[in-house]
Amino acid sequence: MIANSTVAIVGLGLMGGSVARAVTARGGRVLAHDRNTESLEQAMRDGVVQAALGHDLGGLDEADLVVLALPVDATCRTLPVVARHATRARLLMDLASTKRSVVACAESAGIGERFVGTHPLTGSHRSGWHAARASLFDGARVFLCPTSTTTGAALRLAEQFWSALHARTEALDARVHDDEMAWSSHLPHIVSSALAVTLAEAGIPRAALGPGGRDVTRLAGSSTAMWSAIAADNAPAITSALLAFEEQLRSFREAIACRDGESTRALLDAGRAWCETGEVEVRAGLETLPLTP
Amino acid sequence: MIANSTVAIVGLGLMGGSVARAVTARGGRVLAHDRNTESLEQAMRDGVVQAALGHDLGGLDEADLVVLALPVDATCRTLPVVARHATRARLLMDLASTKRSVVACAESAGIGERFVGTHPLTGSHRSGWHAARASLFDGARVFLCPTSTTTGAALRLAEQFWSALHARTEALDARVHDDEMAWSSHLPHIVSSALAVTLAEAGIPRAALGPGGRDVTRLAGSSTAMWSAIAADNAPAITSALLAFEEQLRSFREAIACRDGESTRALLDAGRAWCETGEVEVRAGLETLPLTP
Repeated sequence: MIANSTVAIVGLGLMGGSVARAVTARGGRVLAHDRNTESLEQAMRDGVVQAALGHDLGGLDEADLVVLALPVDATCRTLPVVARHATRARLLMDLASTKRSVVACAESAGIGERFVGTHPLTGSHRSGWHAARASLFDGARVFLCPTSTTTGAALRLAEQFWSALHARTEALDARVHDDEMAWSSHLPHIVSSALAVTLAEAGIPRAALGPGGRDVTRLAGSSTAMWSAIAADNAPAITSALLAFEEQLRSFREAIACRDGESTRALLDAGRAWCETGEVEVRAGLETLPLTP
Repeated sequence: MIANSTVAIVGLGLMGGSVARAVTARGGRVLAHDRNTESLEQAMRDGVVQAALGHDLGGLDEADLVVLALPVDATCRTLPVVARHATRARLLMDLASTKRSVVACAESAGIGERFVGTHPLTGSHRSGWHAARASLFDGARVFLCPTSTTTGAALRLAEQFWSALHARTEALDARVHDDEMAWSSHLPHIVSSALAVTLAEAGIPRAALGPGGRDVTRLAGSSTAMWSAIAADNAPAITSALLAFEEQLRSFREAIACRDGESTRALLDAGRAWCETGEVEVRAGLETLPLTP
């Protein structure tokens, strides 16, 4: 479905750039915009982007498929502009990490039928065009969150697109997606960042950490523009998750401070048991939607 | 210095097992004890351990060098027994992750002159004999914490030993070591475990996490016997570090809950800046002791 199609991509960071590379590698034609003209020019020099879209997204009417690869706040601001120009596209997708507000914006912009909110679970602490690679989505899980009016045809097209990129799609209600991500993605991210700031203020350089500590703090190196937008967009759910984590942390601290070895061991054991069951590749905690025919 | 030496190792887990493999690979003779007889027998079948020590550590008098590779609490309990038997050894080391109490126990057991508290910074979430490998210490940082009476000859011998295993040694006061590790190692570990328990209680399986979240929670899979001993041994310093982290986390939560984008971004930026300086391989935060001649 990609060969001979024209795909318009707005935003050539890690995600958008990787989609651009994957589409070009499969014989598709890529039109793109990035407010960072250096990235855009580099992408054109690299032969990945065939033509630039205008600043006002002029040229979008040529696209069969539109991909918005921007932080969630910019996605919501850009959707009305996309709706005006993308007259021909049969499928419009965004790649932001939260989906509830994006799906609502798409409905409000009048493109609900052709829109599928999309979230590839391929987080990386790297960002920008230079980090993009055609294989980013190989084997990745991609959540598809339809609007209330998304047609079966648009959803099937989205599945075919990601399947061509070797990703595994799962259709999911946008609200369920965001509540779930608050725990499984946003909480670990904020924890990693808060730990990084704590160590910075204690005067501990990252180079003093062992391999384990470096892993725990790796996510703190991610794009802060993207993550502050996620935090704002999913604030209530993230706040609940943080409160639960703080309570758990207090239990650990109290057990340790009192040298209550039995309680400390029980807490550590609970964490380890969870890690061990995690080796199984089952996604029992996520409620999946049946695909509409 | 290893070839033709007899090295006694008590504990054949990840650390002790890896020392055993590295010593055997360099032509040393390994005597060992592990209360898990299966590990010990496997190590003998693998040709890594040449003979078993007695349950009471009988046979330790043959050793030129003794390595205790046990959790910190077991190390302290075992040191008096070692002191009685290790009559010939010119160097005794432990490999526990905290050093203040071990060094004090060695002094109290009357082996202070020949003892060097040792901490190889090669943390792994894996544990046990099956995880041991001869190359574990390649390029690793190894902290050497002398007692108040360690001789220059014993310290030099310890340096030569780890140097033969391709590790980089740094002599450090045991108290400074433990205070430092509370931040750079123990705090990230407890954070990882507390996050694992939080997710377990929220019903989120580890398989639902992306690669970033899996990294943040990886340390929670470590040996809980080892880590509850560390937590008890370094409780006051860990408690301080946890309190500082909890305060930082509260700042993040308050900024997010109020959708204060500017504060959220500033906090995330501080974490990211710390990550980026961490790419430099400099250990500015640790106070190193000059080696005594």
